[in-house]
Amino acid sequence: MRIRVLGFGMGPQHVTPEVAEALRGTDYVLAPWKSGQDGLLAVRRAICERYGVELVAVPDPPRDRDDPADYPAAVASWHDARAAAYERVLARRRGTAGFLVWGDPSLYDSTIRVVGRLADRLEAAWDVLPGISAPHLLAARHRIVLHEVGRPVHMTTARRLREAVEGGQDNIVVLLGGGPDLPGLADWRIWWGANLGAPGEELVRGRVGDVMAELAAARARARAAAGWVMDVQLLRRAR
Amino acid sequence: MRIRVLGFGMGPQHVTPEVAEALRGTDYVLAPWKSGQDGLLAVRRAICERYGVELVAVPDPPRDRDDPADYPAAVASWHDARAAAYERVLARRRGTAGFLVWGDPSLYDSTIRVVGRLADRLEAAWDVLPGISAPHLLAARHRIVLHEVGRPVHMTTARRLREAVEGGQDNIVVLLGGGPDLPGLADWRIWWGANLGAPGEELVRGRVGDVMAELAAARARARAAAGWVMDVQLLRRAR
Ligand SMILES: C[S@@+](CC[C@H](N)C(=O)[O-])C[C@H]1O[C@@H](n2cnc3c(N)ncnc32)[C@H](O)[C@@H]1O
Ligand SMILES: C[S@@+](CC[C@H](N)C(=O)[O-])C[C@H]1O[C@@H](n2cnc3c(N)ncnc32)[C@H](O)[C@@H]1O
Repeated sequence: MRIRVLGFGMGPQHVTPEVAEALRGTDYVLAPWKSGQDGLLAVRRAICERYGVELVAVPDPPRDRDDPADYPAAVASWHDARAAAYERVLARRRGTAGFLVWGDPSLYDSTIRVVGRLADRLEAAWDVLPGISAPHLLAARHRIVLHEVGRPVHMTTARRLREAVEGGQDNIVVLLGGGPDLPGLADWRIWWGANLGAPGEELVRGRVGDVMAELAAARARARAAAGWVMDVQLLRRAR
Repeated sequence: MRIRVLGFGMGPQHVTPEVAEALRGTDYVLAPWKSGQDGLLAVRRAICERYGVELVAVPDPPRDRDDPADYPAAVASWHDARAAAYERVLARRRGTAGFLVWGDPSLYDSTIRVVGRLADRLEAAWDVLPGISAPHLLAARHRIVLHEVGRPVHMTTARRLREAVEGGQDNIVVLLGGGPDLPGLADWRIWWGANLGAPGEELVRGRVGDVMAELAAARARARAAAGWVMDVQLLRRAR
């Protein structure tokens, strides 16, 4: 038995030749299915159809979004429930299974952790193929490099943005954001994108304080166009 | 006239469908040619051959590697010289030109800056398509996520690693490294890779202090196998 974790970027336009070949060699692809997020499942379905692979949609366990005190523990128990749902399918079907991961599997995605554990239990071989990540697509759309010459880029979540700024970071990519909620950063520059490479793509750049309204409007348009919205941003302190 | 900046990941296996389509639509591809680095040119040549595009190798201007006091200024003047060499070719041939960029164009690569300036001077339209970056491939090979659950990942250069550690970063991806030169980090964990996705690929992981010799040997093997060596690493402070 074999499990393959396959990054597919933001859609069919990013499926690399090695991922295409892997898909052709899988017996089926497992995909999380969140009710109300059919748009995200549709992208995976389009890819599976293109490469002639069966898609098995696995309902996602409910997740406690109420900011639990012990965040890592809450995530871990959610991973357990998700893993159990996948395990039932894998144990029954065996063969070569694929997981299509949005963007690149190494950024803010739990598939590697879940599959690693499952592969142990099922004594399956497993591997990972990379994909185009949201930060790289954000940079491409704005035609920028993610950092100033020879300087660092710090990637974090909206939840930890404040911590990064207070720690002195001045060039920060923010994922898992809930929108433009950036008190105290009015003078920073922002390069923002929503639904990149997908229906409803929106781009905004400028001084944070100047573009807040524009950004909120763009975010609403993205959601209206696609039925979902995901955004990513690069924030840089003004010199 | 049009210029396209195309990320190709680590080789033909990472050329996305949108980059393939862009290549088929270009009249020629410009590639830097550094004497002694024919291995790097060969990857671009293989991609151009696959998609039926002419490759124009442009000799790279010499670069002052002697750690100039004003590093950004030195880089900028080297960019100028490189841009002048490209401009001569572009001004003569016009049409649609492509630049094949190693990895993703948004990480430690000057093509976007150079092309942005050239496009202004030549009044050319230009765009950028993303690619698979070395950090994402490193993570895939080690089957890891680049950060702990919900925590940040800091990307920087070997030159600035010390600064990142002293600034309190504890999860650092290091590019542009000159090898395993990590005083004071013996207890950190390392996930290291050289020539990923290319001839001579090598992987090492473990406690820094335990794997230094293994790492140096792997680096030498990579160089012997390919004629060049590039390495990238994730360093994480032990808990
Ligand atoms: C669970 S993380 C997964 C990231 C993904 N593994 C990657 O490599 O891009 C989801 C977050 O990625 C970003 N993201 C993913 N797809 C995006 C898109 N098409 N446009 C903008 N941001 C996106 C958003 O910050 C979103 O909250
Ligand atoms: C000039 S930077 C370009 C990075 C590239 N734009 C990317 O997205 O990966 C070159 C550095 O990238 C890393 N790198 C590039 N290709 C690599 C490979 N095949 N294996 C390991 N590291 C690589 C090394 O740290 C190298 O010093």
